[in-house]
Amino acid sequence: MITAVRDAWVVTQDPQRRIVRGDVVIDGERIVSVGERYKGTADKEIEASGDIVMPGLINTHTHVAMTVMKGVVDDIPFPKFLEKVFRIDSDRTEKDLTIGTKIGCAEMIRSGTTTFVDLYYSEDVIAKATIEAGIRGVLCWCVLDEELTTQKGNPLQNCKRFYDEFKNKKKIMPGVGLQGVYVCGEEACKGAKEFSDEKDIPLTLHLSETRGEVNQHRKKTGRRPAEWLNDIGVLGRNTVAAHSAWLTLNEIKMMGAAGMSISSCPVSNMKLATGGVAPIPEFQKHGVNVTLGTDGSTTNNSLDMMAEMKILGLLQKSSRWDPTVANAQELLDFATVNAAKAIGMQDSLGSIEKGKYADIVILDGKSPNLRPLLQENMVSNIVYSGSSSNVKTVMCQGDIVLEDGRMNTIDEAEVLSESEEMWRSLCLR
Amino acid sequence: MITAVRDAWVVTQDPQRRIVRGDVVIDGERIVSVGERYKGTADKEIEASGDIVMPGLINTHTHVAMTVMKGVVDDIPFPKFLEKVFRIDSDRTEKDLTIGTKIGCAEMIRSGTTTFVDLYYSEDVIAKATIEAGIRGVLCWCVLDEELTTQKGNPLQNCKRFYDEFKNKKKIMPGVGLQGVYVCGEEACKGAKEFSDEKDIPLTLHLSETRGEVNQHRKKTGRRPAEWLNDIGVLGRNTVAAHSAWLTLNEIKMMGAAGMSISSCPVSNMKLATGGVAPIPEFQKHGVNVTLGTDGSTTNNSLDMMAEMKILGLLQKSSRWDPTVANAQELLDFATVNAAKAIGMQDSLGSIEKGKYADIVILDGKSPNLRPLLQENMVSNIVYSGSSSNVKTVMCQGDIVLEDGRMNTIDEAEVLSESEEMWRSLCLR
Repeated sequence: MITAVRDAWVVTQDPQRRIVRGDVVIDGERIVSVGERYKGTADKEIEASGDIVMPGLINTHTHVAMTVMKGVVDDIPFPKFLEKVFRIDSDRTEKDLTIGTKIGCAEMIRSGTTTFVDLYYSEDVIAKATIEAGIRGVLCWCVLDEELTTQKGNPLQNCKRFYDEFKNKKKIMPGVGLQGVYVCGEEACKGAKEFSDEKDIPLTLHLSETRGEVNQHRKKTGRRPAEWLNDIGVLGRNTVAAHSAWLTLNEIKMMGAAGMSISSCPVSNMKLATGGVAPIPEFQKHGVNVTLGTDGSTTNNSLDMMAEMKILGLLQKSSRWDPTVANAQELLDFATVNAAKAIGMQDSLGSIEKGKYADIVILDGKSPNLRPLLQENMVSNIVYSGSSSNVKTVMCQGDIVLEDGRMNTIDEAEVLSESEEMWRSLCLR
Repeated sequence: MITAVRDAWVVTQDPQRRIVRGDVVIDGERIVSVGERYKGTADKEIEASGDIVMPGLINTHTHVAMTVMKGVVDDIPFPKFLEKVFRIDSDRTEKDLTIGTKIGCAEMIRSGTTTFVDLYYSEDVIAKATIEAGIRGVLCWCVLDEELTTQKGNPLQNCKRFYDEFKNKKKIMPGVGLQGVYVCGEEACKGAKEFSDEKDIPLTLHLSETRGEVNQHRKKTGRRPAEWLNDIGVLGRNTVAAHSAWLTLNEIKMMGAAGMSISSCPVSNMKLATGGVAPIPEFQKHGVNVTLGTDGSTTNNSLDMMAEMKILGLLQKSSRWDPTVANAQELLDFATVNAAKAIGMQDSLGSIEKGKYADIVILDGKSPNLRPLLQENMVSNIVYSGSSSNVKTVMCQGDIVLEDGRMNTIDEAEVLSESEEMWRSLCLR
């Protein structure tokens, strides 16, 4: 099956960050030609004259099943927030996890995201819903100390079982999650890391989101969280640490030496007012791979990476009084090539190049908010002027999941029709 | 002509902030019924079952004609930014002002804005384009010292001429602008205020956007800008001060006593990294009317009030380490009822109530990013989860300017077709 996307501006995100005008041709799951006029006959023609074709965005930190819990814990102090979210979280059913995941996937598709890294329990339920939605889930089963969890059985064993069951499913990459040092002792952390190394799969965790958790850990162990994790050998090439806001330069250097990635979640940090700002320029300087995540719908309350790129730039510039940090090209890199590297898929994802998976977003070049649109301002316009309203067509591994604004995979009306009942049953209890 | 919007969730923004389910009926320019089932025959039926109907958003600070200059001055230091923008600004033609205004209006319409406060010269050109676009322009001709301007003739006289010519045009409210104390001496300021008082029209100005301008003014006059403006009697009920970021508590109290309004422009301030954060809770405490603006497309680079509401909340919460400040209801108020008051139109705009102008936005209730959607989370979902992608239909003073995503007024394709040439001729010189 050959698909030809015709006459677009292709923001390739290749090593030269070239922007070319021309066709993108997909054969099955993969891109076979970029830029050149395709003279053959395609099974599917997509007219994209003057539109932007860019790599599918990669959201490296979310809890997609929480999408059904929108707007229930806003504008309140953090301890109250945690109390309410933990209570709701422990009460969830397979049905509301499924509905939440499908709404979240629909929202991500409609805002140009084709891959997401999830950290939650019940990733088996989430995987099934994600497969239906047709995008790529890097689904990291949450490991924590057995005596502190509401999961049935041992979390690491649950994670391993999930891995075995889903390791060969198309577009699903099972991974390992760690909730955070506040509920993960040395055994849980080391077990998670060992399994991640054994299978060469991502290990994602919450790291230094709040001052409180840092201080508490230092009190308990004498070491700050990243130092302690480094001491016990948990930081490595597969590690993706969400938030990473309250860090010392010493920790940043350790993280860089470990070759790990971070997922900055600016909206979540700002909305919860946790105070910390991820030190992006220092990460870049010391070799930490920077990526971007929305976090879940209780903190953001959106899974919109088009918005998140801009807000990361705004937060970095404003908090450092420096408009030159986190420029438009870097912000787009965080959400594409860097994110692909974070999940070990730099050879298959993150850019529009021959041989890579066809994870592609088409932005409507006729949108007033993107115009004037020239090669010279294209990346700026995507990042600073663009929005989810510009997302027209989305392809994941060659499958067209959104086509000219119409969802091709899940039945949105059906999913949404149950969402209010789910909200009531979860959030009003 | 009777228009009936059927079976929507109506976020009225009335004094009780009621949300009702039902019909909104418009007779000509005005709303005649809210919430009750309309049993009569309407000339136009709009099926909005489960959609959100909310007041048109009011952007209280922009320079709409600059929309044609997108993505030309990003990620650079502020002095370089100013140098480049001033050079381009002084070179503009009637044609590119018109194209810029139309693109900007299209973008505003598509993101739910029905009224904007503009500060620029050549407001006559901007007015004609705005009339074509069909939304409401509060167009404030920029007054500054005659010897410092590139305007032909005396700026205040130009402003007065503009007022006379456009005062009776539908949906156009001519106003007075002051560029800022750095180019406006006492005579210009007093002249502008006098004219604003005489005609009872808005007086908008840039105030204390950067530390530099505050320090410079104090050096020159011994007073901070707001103190100095208060001394010479320029602050009053009609005044709308954009940015208002670098202020003392003493200035805030003076501003409150004057009964004036501010237009916070969080994205612009953050992107330019000017350091200051508008002290919103202090404004609220001391009686300053808080509203919201996008600023122009060179600083933002978008005119999207749906995004701006959220980002103001994020900036306030994060900079004050307090998630309870600038809550969702307040953020929506800033962009609706407060903004209507700022331009003296609180009796005609800002809420969906009987007798007010039909300035109405319909958000698609079938959008996954807005769901689950209940009365309990509706305002949160609009502000924190909503985006321009949800804007379906927009009405301004009874005219349907956007209908189910189709623009009813300007020919977007035609306008956009010239935009790249304009950009090149302006920005590459």
